[in-house]
Amino acid sequence: MIKDLEQFLDKEITLQAFVDNIRNLQYVAFIILKDASGKIQMTVEKEGNDDLVKIIDELTIESTVKITGKLIKNEKVKLNGMEIIPNKIEITSKALAELPIDYKNKDKVLRETRLDYRFLDLRREDNQLLFRCQSYIEHLMREYWFNNNYTEIHTPKISGSGAESGAEMFKLDYFGKTAYLSQSPQFYKQMAIASGFEKVFEIGPVFRAENSHTSYHATEIEMIDVELAWLNSVEEIMDEQEKWLKYVFNHLTDQYQEQIKQTFNVNLSKIDYDFPRIDFYEVKNILKDQYQGEKAEDLDRTEEELIGKYVKEKYNSDFVFITNYPYSARSFYVMKDKDKTKTYDLLYKGIEITSGAIREHRYDVLKNQIIEKGYDPKNFEFYLEFFKYGMPPHGGFGVGMNRILMRLFEIDNIREATFIYRGPTRLNP
Amino acid sequence: MIKDLEQFLDKEITLQAFVDNIRNLQYVAFIILKDASGKIQMTVEKEGNDDLVKIIDELTIESTVKITGKLIKNEKVKLNGMEIIPNKIEITSKALAELPIDYKNKDKVLRETRLDYRFLDLRREDNQLLFRCQSYIEHLMREYWFNNNYTEIHTPKISGSGAESGAEMFKLDYFGKTAYLSQSPQFYKQMAIASGFEKVFEIGPVFRAENSHTSYHATEIEMIDVELAWLNSVEEIMDEQEKWLKYVFNHLTDQYQEQIKQTFNVNLSKIDYDFPRIDFYEVKNILKDQYQGEKAEDLDRTEEELIGKYVKEKYNSDFVFITNYPYSARSFYVMKDKDKTKTYDLLYKGIEITSGAIREHRYDVLKNQIIEKGYDPKNFEFYLEFFKYGMPPHGGFGVGMNRILMRLFEIDNIREATFIYRGPTRLNP
Repeated sequence: MIKDLEQFLDKEITLQAFVDNIRNLQYVAFIILKDASGKIQMTVEKEGNDDLVKIIDELTIESTVKITGKLIKNEKVKLNGMEIIPNKIEITSKALAELPIDYKNKDKVLRETRLDYRFLDLRREDNQLLFRCQSYIEHLMREYWFNNNYTEIHTPKISGSGAESGAEMFKLDYFGKTAYLSQSPQFYKQMAIASGFEKVFEIGPVFRAENSHTSYHATEIEMIDVELAWLNSVEEIMDEQEKWLKYVFNHLTDQYQEQIKQTFNVNLSKIDYDFPRIDFYEVKNILKDQYQGEKAEDLDRTEEELIGKYVKEKYNSDFVFITNYPYSARSFYVMKDKDKTKTYDLLYKGIEITSGAIREHRYDVLKNQIIEKGYDPKNFEFYLEFFKYGMPPHGGFGVGMNRILMRLFEIDNIREATFIYRGPTRLNP
Repeated sequence: MIKDLEQFLDKEITLQAFVDNIRNLQYVAFIILKDASGKIQMTVEKEGNDDLVKIIDELTIESTVKITGKLIKNEKVKLNGMEIIPNKIEITSKALAELPIDYKNKDKVLRETRLDYRFLDLRREDNQLLFRCQSYIEHLMREYWFNNNYTEIHTPKISGSGAESGAEMFKLDYFGKTAYLSQSPQFYKQMAIASGFEKVFEIGPVFRAENSHTSYHATEIEMIDVELAWLNSVEEIMDEQEKWLKYVFNHLTDQYQEQIKQTFNVNLSKIDYDFPRIDFYEVKNILKDQYQGEKAEDLDRTEEELIGKYVKEKYNSDFVFITNYPYSARSFYVMKDKDKTKTYDLLYKGIEITSGAIREHRYDVLKNQIIEKGYDPKNFEFYLEFFKYGMPPHGGFGVGMNRILMRLFEIDNIREATFIYRGPTRLNP
């Protein structure tokens, strides 16, 4: 790795890297090499080096090379004060001279064109940082779960029965039958609770056949799902999610604060406050003079943005729990609480990143709620079965990974915050 | 948690748990409670406890309860020498008196019936241990990767173009177009290498539309994928995989050796040997007097089992790398090595758990290999694009998680080693 080269000063080294830049002058050639860890200069004096010169004349930017040479100190070299004097250069793969996009200049290329050439777009430093941070964030999430005795589960993505609303599920031909792509591990993570796994999580893809073209929808989404047994109040779930997110964000801040500031101009700072928790109708009340939402019993995007601003100003918090949604805005499987529900949404910088709830675990009540919502219990037979032979009171939540990344790095479109995005008109690469 | 109760001796405690057993006698009732951590006895003297007696008379095995009571020492109680004397019992969910399967007696119930009631089947102790071990195994895998600077990626499971052989992919209707379910992250993990992520991994589902009904095939599989840049020899990949697996197996042994011995009667011991590496044709040669395989240029299941036994006897190794497969047995994207290939399979206790290879990273050679295998390069345009603008020499491997579990716990069918199995005739639960 280039960042570890210094220890080999004055020694012969072998290095494999991309060619980041070439200055091929009359008497000397300067070539900048890069790998994931950094950059270094390679310098070739042309006189008496015909073999190397021939290769360098052929070399193109973005090619990959394997070189052998001596690493020496040189104060005049701006890059690390070091350079490599090669005695062997091998082009391991030669890039075409003309790149299809100027990937280093993000703003010069249309987003859709950049997505067409996502493999080049991802070479840019901001994307390298973004997806390394995603990997680290998931590491931190799991570290918390491991330390707190959770079990990781893998639930099936292909299923015989459509969940809540078949309309939004992709259908596939399954050996002559119809199968569905899972739009949520909801039923299966509850099954894990019925099976006696008391704290479970899953990170995996879910699929939504929604023909949405907004900046925050996708047809394939990376979901983080958590479900916990023996809980009775929604506060306990919020407490757990808050503890978990603080662990993740605060460790991320420790590790990446500076790099994120430099690359994205985003200030991360430690979360030393409690997330505000506001009742659903209180939110409506707070916003009533400012904006009238589209729905009386749910929040629309504008209301989310406004309440996000409100808590930022009032509590200096990026997060806010909205609690106790009306039953009409929630699924049949949540637990009612008089005319409301034991549910919450978590907003982060004004966008919903989580829905959480205490689930209804009593068979009869659950079956009634299915009917009440206008569904046929027959379509939920396999799910209802889980509740017949002992089901711990439980609750949990789901988190959209890419929405977290969007807001964390202040990227305005989920297409940019997804390694390889899928939408109604985007199936490639 | 029940296992942590001892510290609350002589104190009032509140506990939520499943009912594992009930002995309702004339003057006293003994109820065994269980949670994921263990079991404990609750004892109710009937005289003067009418309220509790009424509840206990109603109580069924497998119900869940929330109880409050005093935890006391009692030498006569075989289970931990402790019991709970409750003053309040609440049935939080009441199980039907008759269970559809006797899940505690695995051998008394047909496998397919057990799979129908998987949520009960999973309550059995062996399954609890199995899937907690799976979670821990993945934790160990990731721990190794994190310590060694890998990046986790999430590649799309829905794609516009079929990979190698469209025949084995599920098709779905995607807003009027045809899309495919990914049968491997192969192309996308290579894309990550093209994008400058040098060491990547993914754990996620892949889908195979094979109408196979064997004991080791499934239509939805949990795959572990690894890809590494700047590698030139297949030995380097095998070295890395071997180091990684030893890390995982040896830490698993430290943690679970006893429990696995007790529950599965399987002896795990530390791996202190190098995995034997045998050339493909050498395998054919070793087995030639014993068995003639179905194919001259590949290994069949019987050959895998036989060579597995051979290395167990000769080297006392559960693992064996078979190297340098003939090109006819491999995909177009592997690197050739004269008339062979830079490829390997890793067998674990006689079953293939990994295919690995150095990939062909040179555009022209790769394109020719596509043609040579009888495919139309047009169908691989998006993939070939990755190789035009600099592609590090690279290689990697894929591992089937559930096959590891099968052999590790000596379970004879992959249906039992998958949290929720999917096969041609199994889409539920």
